[in-house]
Amino acid sequence: METRTLVKNVLNTTYEEIPSSVVEHAKKSIQNWMGVAIGAAYHESMDMVLELKEDLNSGEQVSVLGRPEKVDLLLASLTNGMSSHIFDFDDTHLDTIHHPSGPIAPVVFALGEHYDLEPKELIRAFVLGCEVELRISNAVYPSHYSLGWHITSTAGVFGAAAAAGILLKFDEEQMLHALGLAGTQSSGLREMFGTMTKPFHPGKAAQNGLLAALLAKKGFTSSKQVLEAKRGFASVLAPEYNLDRINENWGTQWELLKNAFKPYACGIVLHPSIDACIKLRDYASVKDVKEIEVTVNPYVLELTGKPEPQTGLEGKFSIYHSATVGFLEGDAGEDQYKDEVVLRPDVVSFRSKVKPTVDPNMQEDEATAKLTLINGEEHTVKIEHATGSIENPMTQEHLDTKFSKLTQPIIGAENGKKVIEKVGNFENLSSIKEVIELCTSKNILV
Amino acid sequence: METRTLVKNVLNTTYEEIPSSVVEHAKKSIQNWMGVAIGAAYHESMDMVLELKEDLNSGEQVSVLGRPEKVDLLLASLTNGMSSHIFDFDDTHLDTIHHPSGPIAPVVFALGEHYDLEPKELIRAFVLGCEVELRISNAVYPSHYSLGWHITSTAGVFGAAAAAGILLKFDEEQMLHALGLAGTQSSGLREMFGTMTKPFHPGKAAQNGLLAALLAKKGFTSSKQVLEAKRGFASVLAPEYNLDRINENWGTQWELLKNAFKPYACGIVLHPSIDACIKLRDYASVKDVKEIEVTVNPYVLELTGKPEPQTGLEGKFSIYHSATVGFLEGDAGEDQYKDEVVLRPDVVSFRSKVKPTVDPNMQEDEATAKLTLINGEEHTVKIEHATGSIENPMTQEHLDTKFSKLTQPIIGAENGKKVIEKVGNFENLSSIKEVIELCTSKNILV
Repeated sequence: METRTLVKNVLNTTYEEIPSSVVEHAKKSIQNWMGVAIGAAYHESMDMVLELKEDLNSGEQVSVLGRPEKVDLLLASLTNGMSSHIFDFDDTHLDTIHHPSGPIAPVVFALGEHYDLEPKELIRAFVLGCEVELRISNAVYPSHYSLGWHITSTAGVFGAAAAAGILLKFDEEQMLHALGLAGTQSSGLREMFGTMTKPFHPGKAAQNGLLAALLAKKGFTSSKQVLEAKRGFASVLAPEYNLDRINENWGTQWELLKNAFKPYACGIVLHPSIDACIKLRDYASVKDVKEIEVTVNPYVLELTGKPEPQTGLEGKFSIYHSATVGFLEGDAGEDQYKDEVVLRPDVVSFRSKVKPTVDPNMQEDEATAKLTLINGEEHTVKIEHATGSIENPMTQEHLDTKFSKLTQPIIGAENGKKVIEKVGNFENLSSIKEVIELCTSKNILV
Repeated sequence: METRTLVKNVLNTTYEEIPSSVVEHAKKSIQNWMGVAIGAAYHESMDMVLELKEDLNSGEQVSVLGRPEKVDLLLASLTNGMSSHIFDFDDTHLDTIHHPSGPIAPVVFALGEHYDLEPKELIRAFVLGCEVELRISNAVYPSHYSLGWHITSTAGVFGAAAAAGILLKFDEEQMLHALGLAGTQSSGLREMFGTMTKPFHPGKAAQNGLLAALLAKKGFTSSKQVLEAKRGFASVLAPEYNLDRINENWGTQWELLKNAFKPYACGIVLHPSIDACIKLRDYASVKDVKEIEVTVNPYVLELTGKPEPQTGLEGKFSIYHSATVGFLEGDAGEDQYKDEVVLRPDVVSFRSKVKPTVDPNMQEDEATAKLTLINGEEHTVKIEHATGSIENPMTQEHLDTKFSKLTQPIIGAENGKKVIEKVGNFENLSSIKEVIELCTSKNILV
């Protein structure tokens, strides 16, 4: 009955029942999502996906953030979900390494723009869509993720369907069928990490979830117990699971509040190491460095052990590169993961000075960096909670700076400021179109 | 290296290297697929999916079999793949319970019509697409299916991408990326059996496979080792697997030759029981029957143990109903699985006389039916190989009759005959459009 209980919980939760702290965190999440989506809007993989519009002679309905094109609801969901994950710079539910906005926000924006829906209802759909996907993630993490599923898309598709179902005003039966249709499309392999197919995943989850809802709206039938059935989602996709996690503390505990934002444009497990290397800049200049020993949880090195990355994308999976730019440039934003930076001689040379070691007693958001100078001097920095963690969150000012850096080349500084202001006041907007039109069509500088 | 070897095998196999027996079986498979697709073209679920054209303002490119609409390549793949599985009357690779044509033929027809491709090349794409999906099925069956995956869609998506890649003239690298993109979309839960979402699966596999190929064509990158990687398809979706099965005996053994056609519009495991009950008609009339004891493999009853079905669809998962119509009507075609037949008083009443029992020594294509009359007389019929099995295949005449019954109400008897003739001569057609135009637009009677 977990699926039905979840559906009842979702449908019975009004906007007014969502605490203001959750609404505020939803708006931060949306701002952060828009920033990373707009920033990557002209990535070559985006051009490829948008060419489908010509290939398929498909319809013009809603906007692609950061681009002038209008595309149909499903293609918009795919593209806006994909762009937001291209830089690996989007939000993270730290308990489950799930990036919640990617599968949900594109559906909320597509339906919101197409039907010009009430902004408070859009926030409600966003929040509850995130709760659905994150609670399902809680139920199957870590066995599901360890097996090799990209949890952002496998669980995200349920949240996308739920968000769409809210906006399409579903009753209980329609929502059950929508979740069934969503679950049967659940997919996405971690094997794809490091290729364009990784960011494709949250986009496809958004698209599949919206498709599920569009069909359920018409009376299309599916299983009404997709989560708990003998051959349902949990049993088939997770070696171990706890379905109680899905509905426990509904309405009193909000998973979205555990959503963290990244200061650096790479996997969250690298962030404490980067924090540490930035701090080490106080102790030496480049020419004096003999080596930097970075000590991390073993899992970190498993994910990011690439010693000689050749592309920006590979750099994001390299603790060697990430520690290097942290020390050399004092930042690890999208600029530090450009192909030309990864191949720059001073960067290549410094990477060989980075010596990662592992310590199973370290937490994943913890790192130590020990700087050894040529003269033998040593300095050690310990990061207990990386910037962007729940214990050490990014401030609104940080988030605004991140948004501006990402979006300025695409929509300009002035429009960027207006977007920040309007998203901060999202629930009182007269229409979501006020926000979207600042990020599309004539406002594109590229 | 299994993925790369498979890609080399596919790309290096020319039309001329495909044995004529395989080409002949491919044409039978295509004819059977067209029959079941056209027959179900006006099912209510088809109307729902085709409404997406309006919802999305999507393009008009290619045909939906049995309907006047033209839709875009992706929607055509979804609809033509779905319609062919709606009646559960499509083909079956008996070794893996995989229905091979559903995910492949829609892609071949969509691209074939859109680009007016050479019919021999279409046959090549169909055959090799089927080989890809069936060999991947062999590698993961039975553990993958037992776990709960609908193997027709999970493996089918690879075949769909491969067929599309052949028709889009891929090189080795493009084909590798296409298979990666396909594998990461692999999905479909057996939990959906008995709902509209079951036939949605092969359609979605066709659509996802085509999408994978359309993106790979543009240079979209993915894993090049999706089948064998540590977190690839086999490892994540199958508790046990044997990757050697994928490429063994390539070019000498053809999985498509093991593709069987169904005489009855329900799961293949019910066919021997229906055969047996049809034979029992020789021994008694309805009023004299006390009971019919049907003995089957335990797995059969697990899949079809519904004693009191309420809809035609549920009837297809009921050995009680299937044995009943076999005895009462001497057939179990689509007509015997209409809602009104399932609810007819004489049918409901007779169902209670059907007593299934299980015997682990019985094969899945084997059944015994023992008729006990009210006067105590007993008659037993044993079916060693059901009609439509490899050992007892449907003849071309049987297939033609099945095609005509299914399609006559939609495209008329005369066009049906022409389709049979043209598909039988597929490799020599000047264009696939000769076949398609007989099944669409002005030729629709409905």
